Amino acid sequence: MLGAIEAGGTKFVCAVGDEKGKIADRIQIPTTTPEETIPKVIDFFKQHPVEAIGIGSFGPIDVNRESPTYGHITSTPKPGWKDYPLVKTFQDAFDVPIGFHTDVNAAALGEATFGAAEGLDSCLYITVGTGIGAGALVQGRLLQGHSHPEMGHILVKRHPEDRYQGRCPYHGDCLEGLAAGPAIEERWGEKGIRLADREEVWELEGYYIAQALVQYILILSPKKIILGGGVMNQIQVFPFIYQYLEEFLRDYVSLPELSEYIVSPGLGDDAGITGALLLAYQAWTSEQ
Amino acid sequence: MLGAIEAGGTKFVCAVGDEKGKIADRIQIPTTTPEETIPKVIDFFKQHPVEAIGIGSFGPIDVNRESPTYGHITSTPKPGWKDYPLVKTFQDAFDVPIGFHTDVNAAALGEATFGAAEGLDSCLYITVGTGIGAGALVQGRLLQGHSHPEMGHILVKRHPEDRYQGRCPYHGDCLEGLAAGPAIEERWGEKGIRLADREEVWELEGYYIAQALVQYILILSPKKIILGGGVMNQIQVFPFIYQYLEEFLRDYVSLPELSEYIVSPGLGDDAGITGALLLAYQAWTSEQ
Repeated sequence: MLGAIEAGGTKFVCAVGDEKGKIADRIQIPTTTPEETIPKVIDFFKQHPVEAIGIGSFGPIDVNRESPTYGHITSTPKPGWKDYPLVKTFQDAFDVPIGFHTDVNAAALGEATFGAAEGLDSCLYITVGTGIGAGALVQGRLLQGHSHPEMGHILVKRHPEDRYQGRCPYHGDCLEGLAAGPAIEERWGEKGIRLADREEVWELEGYYIAQALVQYILILSPKKIILGGGVMNQIQVFPFIYQYLEEFLRDYVSLPELSEYIVSPGLGDDAGITGALLLAYQAWTSEQ
Repeated sequence: MLGAIEAGGTKFVCAVGDEKGKIADRIQIPTTTPEETIPKVIDFFKQHPVEAIGIGSFGPIDVNRESPTYGHITSTPKPGWKDYPLVKTFQDAFDVPIGFHTDVNAAALGEATFGAAEGLDSCLYITVGTGIGAGALVQGRLLQGHSHPEMGHILVKRHPEDRYQGRCPYHGDCLEGLAAGPAIEERWGEKGIRLADREEVWELEGYYIAQALVQYILILSPKKIILGGGVMNQIQVFPFIYQYLEEFLRDYVSLPELSEYIVSPGLGDDAGITGALLLAYQAWTSEQ
């Protein structure tokens, strides 16, 4: 049996399953402090013994295996989690191989294996929710270099009529600051889900997401783009994304039909936890 | 002996050498029409027989090996070169393995093997000249997905005081439209080389290049960034790039010391042709 942890800012999803993505059991644990949350995670895996654990974590995290702080959550503002040694904690508790990547890289792996990008060696997975993040599979491997990508914080051009100042604590009006769920709520005065029929909300959202996709496409050239996260459940945003993407790219690159190229997750909300199972399998096979 | 071709929009550089990057002989041929240019390239390799040829080409090109137009230059406006079957032409002439990538991907490979990123499995090579392009090595492999990257055409925010309209025929004021050599010349009325002591020229150039680097860093997280091409010979632009990059990123990601992270090519103008030699070597070894 393999173990999977999707470590998020609001909840930890823990699951056991197999390398086919089949989940045998799962639990959700609220993310409060490490002292409260982690023992419950450990309890779950004591009840469900596993041969390896894959972790897809909120970040920023240290994914550099040569670093002394490999496996740590690094500079999060979330109380108690800064510099928390996630990998070491589970290695100490279970002595099994541990796979470790960002939550969005895990989701990209899940989608490329069993989801909307099944069978492809390249895809981009973007989540638009309380924050914006993205992960990517590039030529069959999860993208990482100096560190993991931080694609949610790219610069965007403001819409000329958008007077909202943006709410990223670092950059103000970066992509996340202008287009994540809390920005939508603050700009329009209500949560996105209550604004479903307000066309101007989704046109503006499409304007910013399309800009981000222009940059991702021109820089990474993914074979498929998957848009997940709560905000992207408002599927009325997709036609605006396609429209602005065409306007911005102006046929400069040849792309597949946009409605087949830029899609919702094939695994729904399970992309991340499925990818974490696959990270566990990779960690297990690399030690055989 | 290995053969290398750096196929550029103004000249073809042809060389023979070895997998250590040592060049034994070379020639430059002006890029006019295929009917004029290609026979001279073929002549060179008839005089210098090789066991494989690596091509780093101007683009867009088709790098998808499963495509019926693999190895073609695709949609260039350059007369005679649209849909030109570059790889097939040399395969027919010499019957040796052919390696094929963009000129900038070849340069990235050259720099990661013998240049400023020597020994790293990850780097980004950007050229700023008559156009802007970039290639990247990601986890030891040249970046490609649906197609090759087209990083020179990413969107940038205009400087609030920049009234120049931009000159990209596709996008107007994309990065290339605002920051390539011809844009500098049109905006300021003289070639960049004659504007060396005009601080405002290089501050504005640094503003746009730094924006591009923000996007590349947040999306790809390269281990080293190399800025080549004629415009980047104006090294007085580097301090402005560092200054704006810090302003835009606001310490959100942890980077090496910028003056060591963002550097000039270690191979000077030979990054591309050296990378093409390495592409030849890769093609040769993959067929042994």
